[in-house]
Amino acid sequence: MAKKIPHRLYLTEDQMPKQWYNLRADMKQQHDPLLNPATLKPVKVEDLYPIFCEELAHQEMDCTTRYFDIPEEIQEFYKMYRPSPLVRAYNLEKALKTPAKIYFKYEGNNTSGSHKLNSAIAQAYYAKKQGLKGLTTETGAGQWGTALAEACAFYNLPLTVYMVKVSYEQKPFRKTVMQTYGAEIVPSPSNTTKIGQEILKENPDTGGSLGCAISEAIEKAMSNPGYRYVLGSVLNQVLLHQSIIGLESKIALEMLDEYPDIVIGCAGGGSNLGGLIAPFMQDKLTGKASPRIVAVEPASCPSLTRGKYAYDFCDTGRVTPLARMYTLGSRFIPSANHAGGLRYHGMSPILSKLYHDGYMEAIAVEQTKVFEAAVLFAKQETILPAPESAHAIRAAIDEAIRCRETGEAKTILFGLTGTGYFDMTAYNSYLSGTMTDYIPSDENLQKGFDLLPKVN
Amino acid sequence: MAKKIPHRLYLTEDQMPKQWYNLRADMKQQHDPLLNPATLKPVKVEDLYPIFCEELAHQEMDCTTRYFDIPEEIQEFYKMYRPSPLVRAYNLEKALKTPAKIYFKYEGNNTSGSHKLNSAIAQAYYAKKQGLKGLTTETGAGQWGTALAEACAFYNLPLTVYMVKVSYEQKPFRKTVMQTYGAEIVPSPSNTTKIGQEILKENPDTGGSLGCAISEAIEKAMSNPGYRYVLGSVLNQVLLHQSIIGLESKIALEMLDEYPDIVIGCAGGGSNLGGLIAPFMQDKLTGKASPRIVAVEPASCPSLTRGKYAYDFCDTGRVTPLARMYTLGSRFIPSANHAGGLRYHGMSPILSKLYHDGYMEAIAVEQTKVFEAAVLFAKQETILPAPESAHAIRAAIDEAIRCRETGEAKTILFGLTGTGYFDMTAYNSYLSGTMTDYIPSDENLQKGFDLLPKVN
Repeated sequence: MAKKIPHRLYLTEDQMPKQWYNLRADMKQQHDPLLNPATLKPVKVEDLYPIFCEELAHQEMDCTTRYFDIPEEIQEFYKMYRPSPLVRAYNLEKALKTPAKIYFKYEGNNTSGSHKLNSAIAQAYYAKKQGLKGLTTETGAGQWGTALAEACAFYNLPLTVYMVKVSYEQKPFRKTVMQTYGAEIVPSPSNTTKIGQEILKENPDTGGSLGCAISEAIEKAMSNPGYRYVLGSVLNQVLLHQSIIGLESKIALEMLDEYPDIVIGCAGGGSNLGGLIAPFMQDKLTGKASPRIVAVEPASCPSLTRGKYAYDFCDTGRVTPLARMYTLGSRFIPSANHAGGLRYHGMSPILSKLYHDGYMEAIAVEQTKVFEAAVLFAKQETILPAPESAHAIRAAIDEAIRCRETGEAKTILFGLTGTGYFDMTAYNSYLSGTMTDYIPSDENLQKGFDLLPKVN
Repeated sequence: MAKKIPHRLYLTEDQMPKQWYNLRADMKQQHDPLLNPATLKPVKVEDLYPIFCEELAHQEMDCTTRYFDIPEEIQEFYKMYRPSPLVRAYNLEKALKTPAKIYFKYEGNNTSGSHKLNSAIAQAYYAKKQGLKGLTTETGAGQWGTALAEACAFYNLPLTVYMVKVSYEQKPFRKTVMQTYGAEIVPSPSNTTKIGQEILKENPDTGGSLGCAISEAIEKAMSNPGYRYVLGSVLNQVLLHQSIIGLESKIALEMLDEYPDIVIGCAGGGSNLGGLIAPFMQDKLTGKASPRIVAVEPASCPSLTRGKYAYDFCDTGRVTPLARMYTLGSRFIPSANHAGGLRYHGMSPILSKLYHDGYMEAIAVEQTKVFEAAVLFAKQETILPAPESAHAIRAAIDEAIRCRETGEAKTILFGLTGTGYFDMTAYNSYLSGTMTDYIPSDENLQKGFDLLPKVN
């Protein structure tokens, strides 16, 4: 008799991973080193200390330690909202009349509304441990800012969040959630930093961008003794913390005697995708299995599918080290796509390298198609997904429909990163038929490439 | 060695209850019967058929069947978002320095954001089974409307929701969530019903009320063949469905060798409270145990603590049967308290009777104290609670503080009914210091009592 597969599988506390997995330890080739933008020399770990906590700087640079113990305090915090369930989407399968088995790992069951809390609590913990006075960060849609506000509240650590001005104005409720957790919220660009002042001088009416908010948050951290900057995606340390998503998924699937044929994740900076795929990519790198691994990005911000693999800044203000990654250029301003969390010009250097070396596929999808998938999913599976997560849903549905056509009973795993409760403006736009798609022209993209730093 | 108690305990699918528990079967005395307002004679089950589905009408009237099998289709739906976790609030205990053990049953992990989905899916299922064409209901804060929209979407059942106008205007995102699930949303009072037209004629600028929206929804259902009305609280059938909350809690506590000394729930119409306490009240009624059971209501709408135990209408428009319950009078307009789900003039007849007979305590709390508790809880336990739920948190915290003073290690269980993601206006009011408390004067309450129907 086939094993009975529950709708939702939660690991017990004993079964939860006690270590994070560092994908780099199994990569045959590492991504190119971060470069100091002034000297163009590879960055050393000490160079990162003024920006990042020391332990996090070490995690950022470490390519050899395969597993990092999760400090017990972080494990305890994880237990307040984890494990997240591995869900079998029985009703979606039925609606699609597909022989495919669709699983998703649901990370939305916490107040930040997404997987971001997994890294936020780790970063806050190390900051507290180092005796820092406070943290700064940026947020776009607000999920990362909320997650970090929750984590900092837990450790009584002051936090300043630079929130992209257009989000600050459009999402007052997100702002209030962060304020409830005690964070100070500054709309970016602002007059509180030099880079903000410059940007406002050039363009007083700008709605801001993630890249610009990053620049401000870094400047604020570096000009305040005892403060450090933290980031919710792109960085190697973030992918390390997020490996908890994939590790839990893999344990749960093993309990069900399952292994995914396809692993699908939405991709902005890469935090969720990198975390979800980690142990499956390990199998691929070590020759144990060969699942297809698919990154899904918005057609309006197609860093993997149409970007250049090049050295670039991580921020608009060009204060960060240079990273070699798939990028649309740090000065590329993506259109006002509703998936704010995916509107980033670059992509995690680890994921960029894996994609470049052929270990991973990437596709770009248009937002009306994404919301069509989101609504179907909401009705069948009761969960209202975040627009970001709905990119992965779109791809999973398309794979399941292909299975219906070919008759293959593939096992599909996708990451449902979060809920859309703060994205109802976007849903309203879709439901009222006013949502449009935007695909940047080659000419438009070329403008971003033209401004790439000269090192390339 | 003491049993290791996890932060979160999820039952497995096999452990989930397969029957609802009907508290009335163990009550020595039943609540007084519903009365037909025209004849003042007790309502018969057939009298309810024009308003309710037949199976639900039977559930409404049944005082003897102790357990009702949960239909398999409903069990399957439950598995999409249940079991809900039983959570040990370790960090809250630590922050309060209390020897008490605090548990909460967390019902907020679904898109409706509350426990309301437990009854919504049952009511939609029976409507579908009876071959009805559609349903109508009302919603205040929006949690019930969202839950029912989710349930109706699942069964492809048309739904019209009368949404209290002030909420319709203040909570456009709630409206969009319901629309995403395909529901039609009408601000109440509206011109789509006679009662709505009358109310608008008398008071064109009214923001509406729950009682008025109920009247409109009933009129709409009764004037459209194949339509029925459904309600998210107060009714016996709703308490029956919500018993899943208490039943799951009790199983989980038994696995931990725990039994609550105190069970606490917020009380508006009584759906959560009645569900949470059901199996513990059973123990009390049958002499097996004697936990304290505490209802917490807003000081601004104190039906149990300051209301009359009297026959009254369930709606402002006075079209429903008369129920004997604790009531402030169906024409009582509660102040604009932020816990919209608790702004109801009456209380479940079952709970009213149990309270009247001394099986239950009740307290009223002021909203600034409630939000103070909500923010403390959010910071310690990461979950941002709904204002309604925060009433129970306030009471649980106060009990835990008393334990600190007396040194007693009591076991406290409370119901965390939902999340506050759509209540950020209220949080903002609290954080900015503009929130006020409102306690109705005796004179004001007397006005409501004066308008009670003459049957009393």
